[in-house]
Amino acid sequence: MKIARFSHDGALAFGILDEEEREWVVLAGDPMYAGYDTTGERIKLTDATLLAPVLPRSKVIGIGRNYREHAHEMGSEPPEAPLMFLKPNTSVIGPDDPIVLPPQSSRVEHEGELVVVIGKVAKGVSEENALDSVFGYTIGNDVTARDLQRSDGQWARAKGFDTFCPLGPVIETEFDAASATIETSVNGEVRQSGRIAELIHGIPELVAYAASVWTLLPGDVIMTGTPAGVGPLIDGDRVDVSVSGIGTLSNPVRDGR
Amino acid sequence: MKIARFSHDGALAFGILDEEEREWVVLAGDPMYAGYDTTGERIKLTDATLLAPVLPRSKVIGIGRNYREHAHEMGSEPPEAPLMFLKPNTSVIGPDDPIVLPPQSSRVEHEGELVVVIGKVAKGVSEENALDSVFGYTIGNDVTARDLQRSDGQWARAKGFDTFCPLGPVIETEFDAASATIETSVNGEVRQSGRIAELIHGIPELVAYAASVWTLLPGDVIMTGTPAGVGPLIDGDRVDVSVSGIGTLSNPVRDGR
Repeated sequence: MKIARFSHDGALAFGILDEEEREWVVLAGDPMYAGYDTTGERIKLTDATLLAPVLPRSKVIGIGRNYREHAHEMGSEPPEAPLMFLKPNTSVIGPDDPIVLPPQSSRVEHEGELVVVIGKVAKGVSEENALDSVFGYTIGNDVTARDLQRSDGQWARAKGFDTFCPLGPVIETEFDAASATIETSVNGEVRQSGRIAELIHGIPELVAYAASVWTLLPGDVIMTGTPAGVGPLIDGDRVDVSVSGIGTLSNPVRDGR
Repeated sequence: MKIARFSHDGALAFGILDEEEREWVVLAGDPMYAGYDTTGERIKLTDATLLAPVLPRSKVIGIGRNYREHAHEMGSEPPEAPLMFLKPNTSVIGPDDPIVLPPQSSRVEHEGELVVVIGKVAKGVSEENALDSVFGYTIGNDVTARDLQRSDGQWARAKGFDTFCPLGPVIETEFDAASATIETSVNGEVRQSGRIAELIHGIPELVAYAASVWTLLPGDVIMTGTPAGVGPLIDGDRVDVSVSGIGTLSNPVRDGR
């Protein structure tokens, strides 16, 4: 089931995709909290403006160097345990919202990623039970000011600028990670591609590891890491991140300098 | 004016301190959003259980090495620009709540700090206007798993465990940073002491710097850094952080291992 959050005639709503009719079946509330009651309304896909499908009220968790070839292109080996960092929720934008290049950086790069959306309070869960806490999966772009990431040491600034966390277009609740592929392209040219099965620390491990440190709350997201092929974004680019079974997250790039 | 958030007879409220009568003057809502209308009720200080005076819904911003002697005890020089990191809001606890030592760390340390509470949306503000975005000041303890801080590189885990961000006891809206002192003691023995005027990057600079990167939201907090003298906490300790003009934030320490 594919769930989106969208605006339509000035109002916000959540909906379930009816792929055949190309319509959103409008839900009475946020399904993460309110379940799947419908209002009876249907909205044509072309009449809805998609928003980030989840608004994290606590944590946007990033995972560093979780694909082997990407760790190598960053000049290091993958860490033994998941390397976690935090992005602020003010960096989240939705599909088609512009990624704005900040004046402080001269090299901003794309990092297309599969994103886990937490749906239940979780602390101290085992890997075996970790997926019970997962609401679904979406796509993210862990946009990174590569120059500031290197110079600051801590990544909060380099990965936390406003607009540096596009999420969407939908949350897929029945995602099959074992067979899925991920691809990031800029202006139609493929820059990153990989299989989700190549994650060094898989999804149950990531959820259990994060929940061994932090209480995970509904709406928290875990960005699972990016494959090799990261590269710069410039004014006027359009960056697309596709995950098979979920869709494509597409954002234009605008110079804010 | 000193503002607290507390529970009383099972209900939550905000109140203004009446020091003479030793009572809380109960407010109709959160003064950050709803102003200072009172309900007419008054509650004896001894009848209220204090909670963290602010619940960050977006960012708990930490500042690394912002006192010279502390930078030296950490084996480095202070950074030229503020070194920002993020703690998750799930780490926030209130006065007298226990700091729980997690099984993953064998060395958890106190870092007593002055904390700036943001009251208005701020992006791209000048240092001159930065204080217009400030609602008030409170006290915090940037509790840190020192061993994991060193081994992880990124500080999100080491500084982000549940209970690692005590805040309180009150928000002082008329704080004079120029003359204030800060002192942290463990079991009554002074471990850290300094003057807020010794901050390398002062409060207007910190607010303006953070707001040059992130949109600051009401309820965001900036922990301004800790003076020299950080040291370990063990089961059964009580750690007190005092800032002149605000009060004392006191928390017991409990072993969660």
